[in-house]
Formats: sequence, structure tokens, C-alpha cells
Amino acid sequence: MTMNRRFLLIRRPKGTPVPEDFSLAQTPLAEPPAGSFYVRNHFASLDPAQRGWMDDEPSYMPPIKLGDPVRATTVGRVHSSANPDFKPGDWVLGLNAIEEYSLVAPGGFTSKIDVSRVPSPSFFLSGLGAVGMTAYFGLLESGRPRSGETVLVSGAAGAVGSLVGQIAKIQGCRTIGIAGGAAKCKRLKERYGYDEAIDYRGKSAAQLSAAIAAVAPKGVNVIFENVGGDILDAGLMNLADKARIVVCGLISEYNSASGKVGARNIWQLIVKQASMIGFLVRDYVPRFAEGGAQLAQWMSQGKLLLDEQIEEGIENAYPAFMKLFSGANDGKLILKIGA
Amino acid sequence: MTMNRRFLLIRRPKGTPVPEDFSLAQTPLAEPPAGSFYVRNHFASLDPAQRGWMDDEPSYMPPIKLGDPVRATTVGRVHSSANPDFKPGDWVLGLNAIEEYSLVAPGGFTSKIDVSRVPSPSFFLSGLGAVGMTAYFGLLESGRPRSGETVLVSGAAGAVGSLVGQIAKIQGCRTIGIAGGAAKCKRLKERYGYDEAIDYRGKSAAQLSAAIAAVAPKGVNVIFENVGGDILDAGLMNLADKARIVVCGLISEYNSASGKVGARNIWQLIVKQASMIGFLVRDYVPRFAEGGAQLAQWMSQGKLLLDEQIEEGIENAYPAFMKLFSGANDGKLILKIGA
Repeated sequence: MTMNRRFLLIRRPKGTPVPEDFSLAQTPLAEPPAGSFYVRNHFASLDPAQRGWMDDEPSYMPPIKLGDPVRATTVGRVHSSANPDFKPGDWVLGLNAIEEYSLVAPGGFTSKIDVSRVPSPSFFLSGLGAVGMTAYFGLLESGRPRSGETVLVSGAAGAVGSLVGQIAKIQGCRTIGIAGGAAKCKRLKERYGYDEAIDYRGKSAAQLSAAIAAVAPKGVNVIFENVGGDILDAGLMNLADKARIVVCGLISEYNSASGKVGARNIWQLIVKQASMIGFLVRDYVPRFAEGGAQLAQWMSQGKLLLDEQIEEGIENAYPAFMKLFSGANDGKLILKIGA
Repeated sequence: MTMNRRFLLIRRPKGTPVPEDFSLAQTPLAEPPAGSFYVRNHFASLDPAQRGWMDDEPSYMPPIKLGDPVRATTVGRVHSSANPDFKPGDWVLGLNAIEEYSLVAPGGFTSKIDVSRVPSPSFFLSGLGAVGMTAYFGLLESGRPRSGETVLVSGAAGAVGSLVGQIAKIQGCRTIGIAGGAAKCKRLKERYGYDEAIDYRGKSAAQLSAAIAAVAPKGVNVIFENVGGDILDAGLMNLADKARIVVCGLISEYNSASGKVGARNIWQLIVKQASMIGFLVRDYVPRFAEGGAQLAQWMSQGKLLLDEQIEEGIENAYPAFMKLFSGANDGKLILKIGA
């Protein structure tokens, strides 16, 4: 009998998730009902958004139910199928969960992918998946950078941020990246081509604001925000007129147990006639092929570097997920849960 | 010898302004230098923005210098002139100060107005001035309401808010107004035609959010924000997809001595793919004639009610100004400082 190991959410985290909020369960794999199929998940995407889905708050998706496995985008192969459109062995990408086998009901959000074009099927969770599409459409459609403008990216060494910085350079922009620690700042300049790198560690909001002002005395035209909190507040104090702030993520507050911080300096939106635009990649699903083709071209031309950090084993799901919040990852964090 | 009474800023307020931050000075009026003229101010506009100019913080205008009179838009008549384009007796509108006579240097931001078209010259400080233009362009250009959409206005009984609600109704929108106290809420519905009125007094952010949800179960498409703080946070929890939030003012925090609050719930911008747009009427100066013509037409058709609250006497400048923050005004607050 085939067993299915599943990483379950059994308690809603209060602030920072702890191991006791989760459980690794093992259940026998059944046969798929008519019209459904099972995917053997090979890779699961680890994303800050998953932390939000663990809360019982109104969002763009329902909260993960207690006792359910942690929702995740996965790449895998069809294992057993009662759906004539999906045959065992087919590679698929879908919104499933951190579990060895996911049941995909008829009409579920899972589609076939051609892995022959990519170095690893995991690329569909990074550059050619939501991460790449978020960087591409978030920057270009919501941020609308023009050549010669200055683009400030927080979480600049992260999965999305590292791509945003490189895409902004391709657009002819000057790029400033904010990241934590000297090693990441070195990486920003040497690997991702940022013109300036700012280490936020040990800096107050006022010091961070001064550090941005020192390298962007005329202000920044676009902020691509992944972090929030003091970093967003410092960015807000350095806007050029008519600046656009793409709010992609607010990872600094996802684990806050003391309530949301948000953006204290939104008065600067008035002063600079600036806009803050919430970005959700879901809106761009119909244009993923277009974005993917462009990103793949830039990669093949050597203009765009894509980094993945692959963690091994579903039994390591909790420590792997927590690396998102400690800054202990370089590149897109992915959990490998199958051969 | 003609004396000039002037309402000076002599100390930067910490939090809520106190009488000791100001001084009423009296100085002899000189002759205007070549190219300049003196305006005898009849009406001075009292606006929340003036509180911001009293702080020593980077903004869209330099701070008022200590010892200078409090900057204000005024309407008055040319008194003595060494500028051939401005003759004694001409009515003018300009960015001057709360003082009986303002010196306008060559090229100063002061222009002649035709007061024969309006019931009172003070209309150039309310409906036909920055207040009317803010409501008109802020709602229509930044909020972009469509017929049938729901528009939420905070500070809804105020100078700008009362106009925004009425303009939104003219556009075919459903309007929800937030104001403080039963009398103002009654006024919202009976005088300004709001479909729903919510009294924020005595309500927590969560209760306010529930009150909005009760009258807008599908969310609001446009927020016209004049207040900030808990009221903005409650609005953010009730956005429809792709909502637009026009940030016109944040009066709840202008007197804060404990730092800015901002918007704690900006994570909802991501969830609802919503935008927050800072509005400054200065951008629309070239279109004031267009906006003024439309507002004047609506007024003459009886579709738009314009309320002014005129306070008397430069010696009452401080208590008059403070009415902006206590909610003790109905309609546009104006200080009459000359016959």
C-alpha cells in the first residue's frame, strides 16, 4: 500500500510559526475518484504568502483549514489518474499542497508543463512560475519604470527581488537594493547588478531613510516593496514626485503577533502625489505565456540570472519554510519532496 | 499711519497647537517696493494643510518660518500698488497669510478674480477655490468613480467631503459618509444626499469596519480619505477588488505628538489589488477654470450645496483654526479679517 506523507496545519500560528503548529501525517493513498487524478509532487514552492493563508483573516484565498496540508504550488508528475486528459507520467504544475501526493479534482487549477525546455522542472516554481511573473508584471505593469528612473527594491536578494533588480536594469533604470547583511549586499551588486546596495541591519528607520537619500538625492521613482515596516517607511520618505510603490509583499509583518504596522509615512503620498499599488500575480495568469517567453529569452541571453535554493525532504518542511523569515535563503526557496 | 495686524507662528507646535505657539503682532504698513503691491485681505482660508506647514518636515512647500505670519490662501482687494497690473480696489486671490495686509512681490502667486459672478468673494476660498477643485479633481481624476459604484468618504461633512459626496451622487454612485456625531450624520443624509451615514464616535476600528461592511457588503470601490487612522484602517478592510483610495488628507494625525500612524492595513491593497493615490490639488491649477465652470453650473442647477462657516476677526484666528480639528465646523471654515 502506498503511503502519503502530508505536512498538515493543525493550529493557527500566533506570530512566528512554531513546530507545534504543524504535523507530519501519513495516510494510505486511495484510488482517484472519477475525473480526478493524483500528482506525485516533486517540488513545492515555499512562499511568504503561505504564512498569510495560515491566518483566519479575509484574504484573496480562503484560509488553510486546520487539519489540511499547507497549500503550495507544486510541480510533479501524474501518478494515478481517472481523468483522460492527464496520464501517469505527465508533468504538471498546480496549486496543491506540501504532501507527497495531491488529489486534483476535475477542473482543479493544475496544468501540464513542458519540462524539456528548462534545466529543472523546479524552474516552473521560480523564474517561469509565480515568482518570475510577479517580478515581471509587478515591476513593468504596476511600477511602470522608464529608462533613466531610479528603482528601489526591498528584499532585493530574495526570489522576487533579485529578478526585479535585473529586469529594472534591462529597462535602463538605476537600481538600489536593500537586503540584510554584508554577504547579501555583495551579492546584490556582484550577481544581480544593483547599482547600490543598502544593508538594513542595525539601522533605524531614520538611518535607513538617510542611507537611501545618500544614494538617491533626487528621490526614487519606483519602489518594489517586499518587506514593509521600517523599510517601507524609509522608502516613503525618499519619493520623487509621482512615484509608484508596488506593494508586492510585507514579509516583516506576516509573523507579527502585536498587530499590523503597515505604512506610517503615507502622508508622503500626498506630498509627492505618489501611488501605492497592491499587486497580486493572479491577475496576470492569462499573460503568463507572454511573461514566461520574455524571461526565458533574457535567461538564454545571459541577461537574467535565476537562483534557486532547494531544501530536501518533506520532513524538513518546517525549518525550510522558516528560512523565508530569517533571511537564510539565497534565491527562490523550494522544497524537494520527491524523486 | 496704517497698522497691519498679523497672526505669527512663533514656535513649532508639538502635537496640538496651543495659543502660545502664535502671536498677534501689529506693525506699521510700509509703501510697496517697485513692482509689488499690498492686498487688504478680506477672507483667509483655514485648512488642515496649514498644520503641516507649521512643522519643520520636508513637504511640498517649505515650512512657515518662525516669526512669519501663518501662510493662507486669501481673498482681498489691492490696497496700495507699485505694480501697474494691479490697481487699488482690484479683487485678488492668492497664497498670502493670515494678516490684514499682505505684500505681493512681482510674480507672486496672486491673480485677479471676478467677484460679480458669486454670492460672496469668499466662494473663491470654498467651492471655486482649492476646496472645490480638490473635491472635483480628487474624486473624478484620482478616484475615477463609475456609475453604480460605491464611494466611501471620511470627513464627509467637512468642506471637501460634503462636496465629494454630492459630486459622487451626480456621477450615479452610491455614497457612504463617515462623520462624528448624530447631528453631522443627519446633515450627511438630509443636506448632502449621502445614502448612508456612519458615526465614527465611540467605535473601535473593528466596530467601524463592521459598520461599513453592514452597508457595503460587497465592499467599496472608491474611498475619499480625509481623516486617516482608525477610519482609514476600517475602510481598507472593506475594499472591493481594484478599489481606488484617494488620500487627500490625514487630519487625525496632523496633531499627533507620538508619531505617525499611517495605514496599518495596507496588506489589503495586495489582497484586493487596490491602489492608494496621494492627491495634491496643485497639479490641477491649469484646469481650475474647467473645474470651476462645472461646479458653478451644478450650483446654479441646485445640484450642489456649498456651505461656509465664517469666523470673524483676526484676533480669533487661533480658536477659529482649532475648529478644524475638533469637528466644530459645518462647511468650509473661513476667517473674515476685513470689511
